[in-house]
Amino acid sequence: MTVNIQEALTDIVGPKGILTGEDVSQRLDGWMGAPQCQAKAIVRPATTEELSAVMKLCHQNDQTVTTHGGMTGLVGGAISSPEDVVVSLERMRNIIEIDAENRTLTAEAGVTLQSLQEAAEGIDLFYPVDLGARGSATIGGNIATNAGGNRVLRYGMTRDSILGLEVVLADGTVVSSLSKVIKNNTGYDLRQLFIGSEGTLGIVTKAVVRLRPKPRGEATALVAVEDFNHLTRLLSLAEGALSGGLSSFEVMWNDFYSLVTSFERHKAPLPASSPFYVILETQGNSDEAEQERLEVLLGEALEQELISDAVLTQSVSEREKVWAIRDDIEALLSLNPIHGFDISLPIPAMQGYLDTLRQDLDQHFPDCRLVVFGHLGDGNLHVIIGQVPMEDKKRLDEVVYRGLSPLGGSISAEHGIGHEKKPYLQYSRSENELSLMKTLKLALDPKQLLNRGKIFD
Amino acid sequence: MTVNIQEALTDIVGPKGILTGEDVSQRLDGWMGAPQCQAKAIVRPATTEELSAVMKLCHQNDQTVTTHGGMTGLVGGAISSPEDVVVSLERMRNIIEIDAENRTLTAEAGVTLQSLQEAAEGIDLFYPVDLGARGSATIGGNIATNAGGNRVLRYGMTRDSILGLEVVLADGTVVSSLSKVIKNNTGYDLRQLFIGSEGTLGIVTKAVVRLRPKPRGEATALVAVEDFNHLTRLLSLAEGALSGGLSSFEVMWNDFYSLVTSFERHKAPLPASSPFYVILETQGNSDEAEQERLEVLLGEALEQELISDAVLTQSVSEREKVWAIRDDIEALLSLNPIHGFDISLPIPAMQGYLDTLRQDLDQHFPDCRLVVFGHLGDGNLHVIIGQVPMEDKKRLDEVVYRGLSPLGGSISAEHGIGHEKKPYLQYSRSENELSLMKTLKLALDPKQLLNRGKIFD
Ligand SMILES: Cc1cc2nc3c(=O)[nH]c(=O)nc-3n(C[C@H](O)[C@H](O)[C@H](O)COP(=O)(O)OP(=O)(O)OC[C@H]3O[C@@H](n4cnc5c(N)ncnc54)[C@H](O)[C@@H]3O)c2cc1C
Ligand SMILES: Cc1cc2nc3c(=O)[nH]c(=O)nc-3n(C[C@H](O)[C@H](O)[C@H](O)COP(=O)(O)OP(=O)(O)OC[C@H]3O[C@@H](n4cnc5c(N)ncnc54)[C@H](O)[C@@H]3O)c2cc1C
Repeated sequence: MTVNIQEALTDIVGPKGILTGEDVSQRLDGWMGAPQCQAKAIVRPATTEELSAVMKLCHQNDQTVTTHGGMTGLVGGAISSPEDVVVSLERMRNIIEIDAENRTLTAEAGVTLQSLQEAAEGIDLFYPVDLGARGSATIGGNIATNAGGNRVLRYGMTRDSILGLEVVLADGTVVSSLSKVIKNNTGYDLRQLFIGSEGTLGIVTKAVVRLRPKPRGEATALVAVEDFNHLTRLLSLAEGALSGGLSSFEVMWNDFYSLVTSFERHKAPLPASSPFYVILETQGNSDEAEQERLEVLLGEALEQELISDAVLTQSVSEREKVWAIRDDIEALLSLNPIHGFDISLPIPAMQGYLDTLRQDLDQHFPDCRLVVFGHLGDGNLHVIIGQVPMEDKKRLDEVVYRGLSPLGGSISAEHGIGHEKKPYLQYSRSENELSLMKTLKLALDPKQLLNRGKIFD
Repeated sequence: MTVNIQEALTDIVGPKGILTGEDVSQRLDGWMGAPQCQAKAIVRPATTEELSAVMKLCHQNDQTVTTHGGMTGLVGGAISSPEDVVVSLERMRNIIEIDAENRTLTAEAGVTLQSLQEAAEGIDLFYPVDLGARGSATIGGNIATNAGGNRVLRYGMTRDSILGLEVVLADGTVVSSLSKVIKNNTGYDLRQLFIGSEGTLGIVTKAVVRLRPKPRGEATALVAVEDFNHLTRLLSLAEGALSGGLSSFEVMWNDFYSLVTSFERHKAPLPASSPFYVILETQGNSDEAEQERLEVLLGEALEQELISDAVLTQSVSEREKVWAIRDDIEALLSLNPIHGFDISLPIPAMQGYLDTLRQDLDQHFPDCRLVVFGHLGDGNLHVIIGQVPMEDKKRLDEVVYRGLSPLGGSISAEHGIGHEKKPYLQYSRSENELSLMKTLKLALDPKQLLNRGKIFD
């Protein structure tokens, strides 16, 4: 390298825009428990133009670059090496425009999900993507990982809420597609290329997101179901009966429900004797209207014997108690060391997959505990396996992932591939798919500077 | 060329699989009124493997290929030259699998939209994409054009209903991504690349589509609105109040409504004295429930003075009469020669755009008639301009399209670019966007064999 890259970077972003030495190693390379960050420098551009100049410089000098958003990703996608330069979007946190009439919001990529949600609420609108890490996760990171979260059933993943993007390519070219229209069939839909590509094709600098009307009321029920087949029939019934109002259909297998409700902090609203429990939530015009719709639905479901028992919550506190069961991650920690898997499957294949998994686990990890819950409507299962030592993680990964391939399942419903799931990508993708991905990577980033070693080698 | 391409193609697909001479020129190169098809041959593979062999052969011989679906496209995307080979999917019309429980359907690309809709209805489910050309348009063509249609507001465009794709690339490689899961963040989302790329990046051979629960009831109203700003407030109110149930929000400008209702076949449900009319439709669990919800909404809208008058239809025949106004294309033909434009705009920019357009038209085409209607919720306007001679089409195109660029509008909301809109693509796309599109094209089809000369040169 002919230039001193740190100096040249400082020339572009100014001294405030660059961190080196201890300022780098103080940071973690991901969510809690991740290793210390290693990099030549962390560059913090304040504008797209600065980032463009940074990337031009890096491109000229064959300098690899890893992008940092809120560092809440769960697959090691933001891990860097001592040879990398890190680009952090932390100084690009402006909300550029809120258009109440068109119901769009334009933001820089470093804006946190929570700030964005709050800005939408400030004009009585609603940004539907939501996830636990909302306070740190950035809109750029959400886009790069196509984040899902709690409301996918009704509103889709991040992909479905993005109208426009501005991206800086590996060579510094700025591609601005900041469209604010919903329908736009004018050539290739370039947004789609960058959404979910985990920072390997370009760095997202701005986005136009679509806002929705804020739901004014909701209703929540917990029901018990005796048979897996009834789950899908119940889902169809609910989607039909609640029309587009159904916002959650969260299934808890008995192993999950019994474990969590065994803790004193929960008063189990239903006895833990059924194989499945479902939280149904509908959002609409008013609490009363939704309560009524849900009540009618539950009546029908009882009549058709799709459910064996039901609690329709009557207050906010009752509602919160039901959700507290579903969200009680602490209860799962009682099975430490635990390993979480975020997979998806065609619904008819789920039960068979879990039966086989249970057998395989019995064989290979006789002491383990399997606990399952998930967004059934999205085909998304959270498989938690407890009491397996950390050093067995790779063997466990194999057992969980290899069964997905013949069933057309996905090794990553939401979190992406990053660094951690890379060895298993071939369980979800064919040779030809992988080689087409590599063709795209080489077309956009021929020197492979962006997030090298992530998704595939 | 060293081989006789016709013979070599016949070796692959058999004599039934190839048309030449008059069998080619008998066909039209598009929808009604299009010119005769010109091509060396029309190849009709019966399987993906045959098509793969066809493409290998063409690739080896630098043979350009244009793909034919149902030939209902409206932008000349399927037009071929005498030097081309045409690939038609007309012998790939099998529905491969219907999975009621997972609510997915897998079909070959030549299946018509209507057959697909009917197959879904056969198991009491629903494929939401719908458009007038359903009897001829194919699912492959819908995917290639990312077709929209009548229910985008609620269910999105074709893109939003496609879970998996199988595609044959320019060199004959088969990329199979026939995933049946909704959430799948495993590397680049290759589907997205092909959806909407108008046959320039690959030939779609199979698709997995997502089915939805069939709505069991609906309600429809026609309302009069006095102020453009009230339209967007009404839309927000309706989306909130009807929750996810709102399935149509079709706006007719006065020029449209007065023209159509001036024909005796319509009894205008509301007098033609307001600047705007909206058809509101909601779909849900039962006619009664939806009727009630819509009635409450109309009450609120009247109270907030967002609407000045309303008719809530009370029977199927009343409902059909309202829709007959919106769908009366014949009435528009009274303004022949007419020119239709399918554009989209951020909602706040619409009124200004139309005012300017009206002025420009007055200046350049003083005798013309401007008639506007559209899917306001999607930002999509249908602009119909009548009484402009066919030979002035290019000048007219300029007037309509050039105003969109500064407003962030799109010259094609639904129909694509194809051959016809190619000269105007730069009004919706920047230099850098176009050059990124070309990078993608060259990466996937370096010899530029697929649909050459479409979208861009
Ligand atoms: C408590 C918790 C709950 C979670 N719940 C969910 C959930 O329900 N659903 C879900 O999908 N995920 C969930 N996640 C995962 C995580 O929050 C998401 O992946 C999030 O989208 C990451 O955003 P981030 O800004 O933190 O990105 P980072 O972690 O900083 O980066 C993630 C990846 O995106 C790249 N990247 C970041 N910013 C950019 C950019 N501007 N341009 C290009 N590439 C970029 C990085 O290089 C990396 O590969 C959860 C995480 C935690 C810790
Ligand atoms: C009466 C009428 C109403 C319409 N209404 C609407 C509407 O509401 N919304 C809307 O969006 N469109 C509408 N259209 C346009 C048209 O129906 C759609 O564009 C449709 O999706 C085209 O499908 P097709 O099978 O006829 O494709 P074709 O016309 O045969 O082809 C269209 C384009 O797709 C390519 N193509 C076709 N099949 C494949 C394949 N298997 N693989 C790769 N490329 C392929 C072709 O090369 C061409 O570029 C309407 C058309 C008519 C005639």
